[in-house]
Amino acid sequence: MIKQKVSGTVYGVILNDNASLQKIGSLDEAPYKGAPKAPVLYIKPANTRVACGSAVELPAGADSVEVAATIGLVMGRAAGRLAAGNALDAVAGVVLAADLSLPHASYYRPAIREKCFDGALPVSSVKPLADLAGLVLTTEIDGEVVDSRSLNDLVRSPARLLADVTEWMTLAQGDVLLVGIRYQAPQAKAGSVVCIGAEGLGSLQFTIVQGAQA
Amino acid sequence: MIKQKVSGTVYGVILNDNASLQKIGSLDEAPYKGAPKAPVLYIKPANTRVACGSAVELPAGADSVEVAATIGLVMGRAAGRLAAGNALDAVAGVVLAADLSLPHASYYRPAIREKCFDGALPVSSVKPLADLAGLVLTTEIDGEVVDSRSLNDLVRSPARLLADVTEWMTLAQGDVLLVGIRYQAPQAKAGSVVCIGAEGLGSLQFTIVQGAQA
Repeated sequence: MIKQKVSGTVYGVILNDNASLQKIGSLDEAPYKGAPKAPVLYIKPANTRVACGSAVELPAGADSVEVAATIGLVMGRAAGRLAAGNALDAVAGVVLAADLSLPHASYYRPAIREKCFDGALPVSSVKPLADLAGLVLTTEIDGEVVDSRSLNDLVRSPARLLADVTEWMTLAQGDVLLVGIRYQAPQAKAGSVVCIGAEGLGSLQFTIVQGAQA
Repeated sequence: MIKQKVSGTVYGVILNDNASLQKIGSLDEAPYKGAPKAPVLYIKPANTRVACGSAVELPAGADSVEVAATIGLVMGRAAGRLAAGNALDAVAGVVLAADLSLPHASYYRPAIREKCFDGALPVSSVKPLADLAGLVLTTEIDGEVVDSRSLNDLVRSPARLLADVTEWMTLAQGDVLLVGIRYQAPQAKAGSVVCIGAEGLGSLQFTIVQGAQA
């Protein structure tokens, strides 16, 4: 049993797996003019966090959400300028996380509305840090496997990502760094039961329900 | 003396004043194809917050930062789906804030690196909620007034902004909503002493210093 809780800010990173980069295709055109040279981060604030077993309401006007399965590194201490070689020493444990987004978010504006609605980050309890290389994350919706991804496909490994992020930003104890999400993840609708699992880390289950105002 | 502290997440909004919209010019072209219909938010996480009197280190490789003076609304209670008519009832007080950014941030990727470095949000202590209409914020760098802005120029008033944001996101007690920053704010360099002030709200002072790695 790990005592460290998710208590701070959750950071995520996009474009950190080869499958997503291939799916998006060339980033050489305007406005990007090249693949990102540093981690492209986003933030999931506290209002997004819900526990395993929660019912997540669709935001008003939405009829589906993308469900991106990922792993979160939970910081066991404040950490700035970590070296990749021992960056994982600052990690207390990991969580299974489902990064929920409204589909068709613009890539050209900060997607706060699309990524930060209440309940947009179901997370599991904190588990011991496993060997993440080769870990396979499976997403089931209504009992059917709709996605499976291996963390071997990461562009930046968890340790490299921690080093690159803490080079310029101090992470606090209890903060979480999500190791990356897949571009165009599977979608869930009102009534869907979602289950994300990985060998040795158990599972994270939640349901999607119609919002009060929708 | 107000007991509520800034304890949660700080949210800001861009493109919420007429002067910035005019300076940017047309947003009708690709990729935007129109002015934003909802508040365009960003997040300043806990590592960015420093108090009045702080020395803020320039991030490695930077030789100046943009200093955008603004006002933050400090939530006195958790708030979801506020109506504009009484939204300010949920506000415990206000802070003077300096939203620091690296210049020339891309508008096409989430600007976390540019906006979320350690110390990128000097904030004052919490003051009683003043009548913000007509409030003038003044920015001095090394004793010279380099910017002056009136909150009369806001597109969404503080109450309207609170209503529009809490329509889809619950703000927690201690969270802060910054009411908007000016596009292309004045820049400060290593050694600059910055002072932001507003009638009735006192002042917020800090210095910019060279970073250890720069």
